[in-house]
Amino acid sequence: MSLERILNAESVAIVGASRTETKRGFQAIRTLLDEKFEGKIYAVNPKEKSVLGFRCYDRVSDIEDPVDLVLITTPAKTLPAVLEDCGKKGVAGAVIIAGGFRELGKEGIDLENALIAAAQKHHVRFIGPNTSGMINLKTNLNLVGLDHVPKGDIALISQSGNMALTLITEAKVKSRKGFSYYVGVGNESNIRFHEYLEFFKNDPDTKAILMYVEGMREGRRFLQEAYKTSLLKPIILLKSGRSSVGQRSAGSHTGALAGISEVSRTAFQRAGIITVENSDELFPVAETLSNAPIIKNNRVAILADGGGHATIAADILTDHLGVDIPELDEKTRGRLQKILPFTASVVNPVDVAGGTDTDPSLFAECARIILKDPNVDGLLMVGLFGGYGIRFADSLKWKEEDAAHQLGKLVLKSGKPIVVHSLYSSIKPHALELLRYYKIPVYDSLDIACRCMGVLSERGRYLGEYHAKVNFVFNWRAKEKPEACQIIETAKAQGRRSLLEPEAKRIFKLHGAPVSDDPIATTADEAVKIFLKLNCEVALKIVSPDILHKSDAGGVRLHLATEEEVRRAFKEIMASGRLYAPEADIRGIIVSPMAELGLEIIIGTKIDDQFGPVIMFGMGGVMVEILKDVAFRVLPISTRSAGKMIDEIRSAPILNGVRGRPPYDKKAIRRLLMLCSEIVEAYPDIQEMDLNPVIVYETGTRIVDARIILKNGQGGQDAPLSSIKK
Amino acid sequence: MSLERILNAESVAIVGASRTETKRGFQAIRTLLDEKFEGKIYAVNPKEKSVLGFRCYDRVSDIEDPVDLVLITTPAKTLPAVLEDCGKKGVAGAVIIAGGFRELGKEGIDLENALIAAAQKHHVRFIGPNTSGMINLKTNLNLVGLDHVPKGDIALISQSGNMALTLITEAKVKSRKGFSYYVGVGNESNIRFHEYLEFFKNDPDTKAILMYVEGMREGRRFLQEAYKTSLLKPIILLKSGRSSVGQRSAGSHTGALAGISEVSRTAFQRAGIITVENSDELFPVAETLSNAPIIKNNRVAILADGGGHATIAADILTDHLGVDIPELDEKTRGRLQKILPFTASVVNPVDVAGGTDTDPSLFAECARIILKDPNVDGLLMVGLFGGYGIRFADSLKWKEEDAAHQLGKLVLKSGKPIVVHSLYSSIKPHALELLRYYKIPVYDSLDIACRCMGVLSERGRYLGEYHAKVNFVFNWRAKEKPEACQIIETAKAQGRRSLLEPEAKRIFKLHGAPVSDDPIATTADEAVKIFLKLNCEVALKIVSPDILHKSDAGGVRLHLATEEEVRRAFKEIMASGRLYAPEADIRGIIVSPMAELGLEIIIGTKIDDQFGPVIMFGMGGVMVEILKDVAFRVLPISTRSAGKMIDEIRSAPILNGVRGRPPYDKKAIRRLLMLCSEIVEAYPDIQEMDLNPVIVYETGTRIVDARIILKNGQGGQDAPLSSIKK
Repeated sequence: MSLERILNAESVAIVGASRTETKRGFQAIRTLLDEKFEGKIYAVNPKEKSVLGFRCYDRVSDIEDPVDLVLITTPAKTLPAVLEDCGKKGVAGAVIIAGGFRELGKEGIDLENALIAAAQKHHVRFIGPNTSGMINLKTNLNLVGLDHVPKGDIALISQSGNMALTLITEAKVKSRKGFSYYVGVGNESNIRFHEYLEFFKNDPDTKAILMYVEGMREGRRFLQEAYKTSLLKPIILLKSGRSSVGQRSAGSHTGALAGISEVSRTAFQRAGIITVENSDELFPVAETLSNAPIIKNNRVAILADGGGHATIAADILTDHLGVDIPELDEKTRGRLQKILPFTASVVNPVDVAGGTDTDPSLFAECARIILKDPNVDGLLMVGLFGGYGIRFADSLKWKEEDAAHQLGKLVLKSGKPIVVHSLYSSIKPHALELLRYYKIPVYDSLDIACRCMGVLSERGRYLGEYHAKVNFVFNWRAKEKPEACQIIETAKAQGRRSLLEPEAKRIFKLHGAPVSDDPIATTADEAVKIFLKLNCEVALKIVSPDILHKSDAGGVRLHLATEEEVRRAFKEIMASGRLYAPEADIRGIIVSPMAELGLEIIIGTKIDDQFGPVIMFGMGGVMVEILKDVAFRVLPISTRSAGKMIDEIRSAPILNGVRGRPPYDKKAIRRLLMLCSEIVEAYPDIQEMDLNPVIVYETGTRIVDARIILKNGQGGQDAPLSSIKK
Repeated sequence: MSLERILNAESVAIVGASRTETKRGFQAIRTLLDEKFEGKIYAVNPKEKSVLGFRCYDRVSDIEDPVDLVLITTPAKTLPAVLEDCGKKGVAGAVIIAGGFRELGKEGIDLENALIAAAQKHHVRFIGPNTSGMINLKTNLNLVGLDHVPKGDIALISQSGNMALTLITEAKVKSRKGFSYYVGVGNESNIRFHEYLEFFKNDPDTKAILMYVEGMREGRRFLQEAYKTSLLKPIILLKSGRSSVGQRSAGSHTGALAGISEVSRTAFQRAGIITVENSDELFPVAETLSNAPIIKNNRVAILADGGGHATIAADILTDHLGVDIPELDEKTRGRLQKILPFTASVVNPVDVAGGTDTDPSLFAECARIILKDPNVDGLLMVGLFGGYGIRFADSLKWKEEDAAHQLGKLVLKSGKPIVVHSLYSSIKPHALELLRYYKIPVYDSLDIACRCMGVLSERGRYLGEYHAKVNFVFNWRAKEKPEACQIIETAKAQGRRSLLEPEAKRIFKLHGAPVSDDPIATTADEAVKIFLKLNCEVALKIVSPDILHKSDAGGVRLHLATEEEVRRAFKEIMASGRLYAPEADIRGIIVSPMAELGLEIIIGTKIDDQFGPVIMFGMGGVMVEILKDVAFRVLPISTRSAGKMIDEIRSAPILNGVRGRPPYDKKAIRRLLMLCSEIVEAYPDIQEMDLNPVIVYETGTRIVDARIILKNGQGGQDAPLSSIKK
């Protein structure tokens, strides 16, 4: 169901309307009046006759005309009855302000679940609970009780009312931009992040979507929606609650699940979301992305009136943001040299070296020359512009204003963005207000100006890459295999959550993975027979559902080369297995050929709380254990994504061959990653898989050990994997 | 010579005094008058009679009374004559505004060297050239032509005039704090960073030193001075020009050498300097450090009126800044619970959950309870404080002001700092101005507020650690050995810059390092004889001043176990050596015992452009080659510093023993690092050393290959190493 009738409600009822000025039920109506809401307002309170001139209804269902949305300001315990009444009336949705739910722990969770059930039963969707409300700035449907929110084309979705207030205040004080909507998602109990996203994707007046998130209930569906949305509109997101203390705090606030930051980061990036870590950057980045043309080829020029700012900007753009600062074309340099003093620097960064001191309109001329350079896709101006009238001579401000007009038109004409840092921005000289009128972003923070330039480039890179992957389709080669289903069913029937090593390997084998199909020997003679048939060095490993850590139980022997060794090993393993776990159900011992030496890697999958199935790849040994050098992806993955994942780990160059070694078979690793993706897709019972180690060769790979853990019986809430398909 | 007479000049002459209002020589005098300079002003210009009522002298030496300082506003070519005249007059120093020196390249360098020579000859110290000037805010000696610079106790040293202007403007617009001095160091041709530092260390009115640096000419002496200064006063520093493009820009500005960021970072840290990467943080961090009590045990509490800010703050403080957010004492929690609503969170972060909505003075009570907690050393308040009167009801502002008074006194009484984030800070409500009056730092940026809390903790940690190392003295066990000197002299006499492997190893051996003293064999028979005597597997390596890359020349054979193998290897090495470099002077072949297997590490030293001798440590193989996992230190190092260096690399846990291995001998590595430090000290001719690999064992280490490169003949400008000694 669309949120149309909720977020664009034409009629709203305030449940808990009050005559007491400090009460939310009073403030809500007053704000709607003050802000001139275009729709109809109804007051609901059985104890009052009227509030602010509105007749009070006893209940929502008493209202004669249709009601789209209800703001419920009454306490938690009243909610089931109110929702029932709303359902009766055919109300589309409710905004539930009350707190005291999941964020308080156990009893809160029960209360919240009851609330969710009531809403479902009566077919009422709701925002919240524990929310500051919502605002539609187009119709002045302001249910927050906050006046003078600046209007604009940024949709704000926030899980913290205070963060929303911070962003709205910042917009009001510092910018010309504002918002199309604000939604406080609160506990996200009913309407989910991805639903808001879909609505704003389709809203013609929203150009960028700004999000503050602590935890998500349906991360997968959010990613799916974000993937589609980000092709049309930028999504800017700050995700907090990374640290354990942050989680403690986020937990106390909304009871939301805080996610593993590494998984979130790559998942968001792949969905085209611009993530921001520094809250100061959140609004400026959204403002810039909603206004300025994007940067197409990652190349930026810097124009400065002094060295310091240019040097810092160059450091930030190249070191931290991965933007190129190319040298300028010879023609460009010549043209600049002609209009600037001989002490000026006409490489990139360009330093006017006092050349603008008596005529700052020269900045516009420099910008025109620079943006004409075929190697330059955008311009960052840093320094004093806008403050020449303040710093040097009052009369210079006219020249600055002239320059501002020229710069504004230059952006429109060239289709290349200009971002301006001015240390005078907070003093608001008119020239800078003019730039803002032309939608040129202006900041007094050099770091933020750089970051804004950086995201224009980041967005350009993403959209550029996307065009290269238009034909990209997830490749679902694998269907479940009946024999594999049987293995899983058998384990479940036996009450096992962990498959035996040969069972896990068999499933991989059935899907064509490079793994030995190890027979189980139940006697030393059988083991020897298998050994003789294999005719190579073998490993013996104990097989028992009761022994998970085989090595600890003395259940593993490697490099056995003779009949005698095999026989002895068999007996010793059996003996130490029995010693280790006298009651253990020992099924036998597998005899598998020793893998040839190669490079060890590790592949694992698991179910992430927020994003469902995820896959991990890393180099074996200390690289994973000590350096935590791993890459994550939300499943399923494409061939391309598998390839990027492999190249993403810090130790990836080892795979390309170092110290004279030939390269390892990265294509085979990619195939194995894809295969894991397919297996997780094919068997929804799988909770975790662990291939540790896998040996990689110049050609091919080989799985040496495989582990599969099944889910705990309770079904997950994950969206079907295939719904990510384009 | 002290800078007393320069920075505290009681009389100043303006050379190039002018009647033209746009000229620096006019503005300088007008600013001194406007700002009411307390000393004497003299105008110098042979072409004018008087400027702004001051009689014009033809030259400085014509002035009857003593002149401390001269501001020279005339062009570069006039400087030698002016400096000569200044010398004649006995002037202490000059401020040289003119640009067009080193920053322009080759001819500029010559011009600058001439300037330096003239100043030396005439005993005149100078600031600049290419500087915006200097200001003494105590006597209003303002030589920058910038009025209304806010006064305070921060000394500002900047290599960029624009960055200084940014910081001064920020102080003016946002803060109650200001500056004691400003010095624009320009090209740092004569007076150096460390000299300013020493002056400000001793200035009673300076409480913190704020620096913007692009490159330093005498990094070592700066470090030495910083080490002493930072024990008394915080030094806050932003170093730009890290990236190659940043260096291009810094180069165009001041011609300064931009340093390797990794070396700078650790060197600065060791000297107690607080480094800042984000220019937005520079002034706030200095402001906070000059005002607030430090945090003694790294433990901070967060007090919030909503979840979002608290969650973000907790993430930043713990993840990025390494500050502990401990759980609160049970008593503290009980006390808070008593005054806050039941929905409040009284763990840390504390969330008042609306408890302050009708009475924000409750914040003071909460703060008092929290700061009484023995586990809490400082408090970060985040959210709306100061804006309750704006957001909720006008009358609340009185309660906020009451709270501000209480909070101010609480800091004084408890000796624990409070830092406040308020999203209303930029609107400047009176309650926040009151907090500033009490020297409580207040910011509208959450990130900056966190960072300020973080540096109070960083400073606390540094000073805390320092107390633990009061007795710390650099350990100079090594004196040069006559035989080693002889080796170096011989190489130099032969025109060699690179020592032969046995020569380098011999030097290490002489200093007691664990290295084999490998004899050189000149015939196969000799090689066999040595092999038989060693009675173990050996390696053969070619020895030739003309063959630096022995392996490339087929000059290395390993694991030779029989007489026959040794004999054949000798012949083959000789043959391929001759083939590789027919003219090569082959001195023979060394026969060394194969090192037992162990863990490979690498140790190297070199001369850094800015900081002189530095040492590098890393794990051998891919850890260094692929992952660049290394640690740097400026030499000499203490035992303690060597130990920290070893533990600093990401792969350090490998040394502690992983996968059941016993730990490696970290003490032996430390000894070897110290020994390298001593050798670099003992032989100033050494440019670079490379021990690659060194094998580490459970007990001891062994140097397998050693390389020593000598300096190019030209003497360095480095301060003597021993002057770092305390």
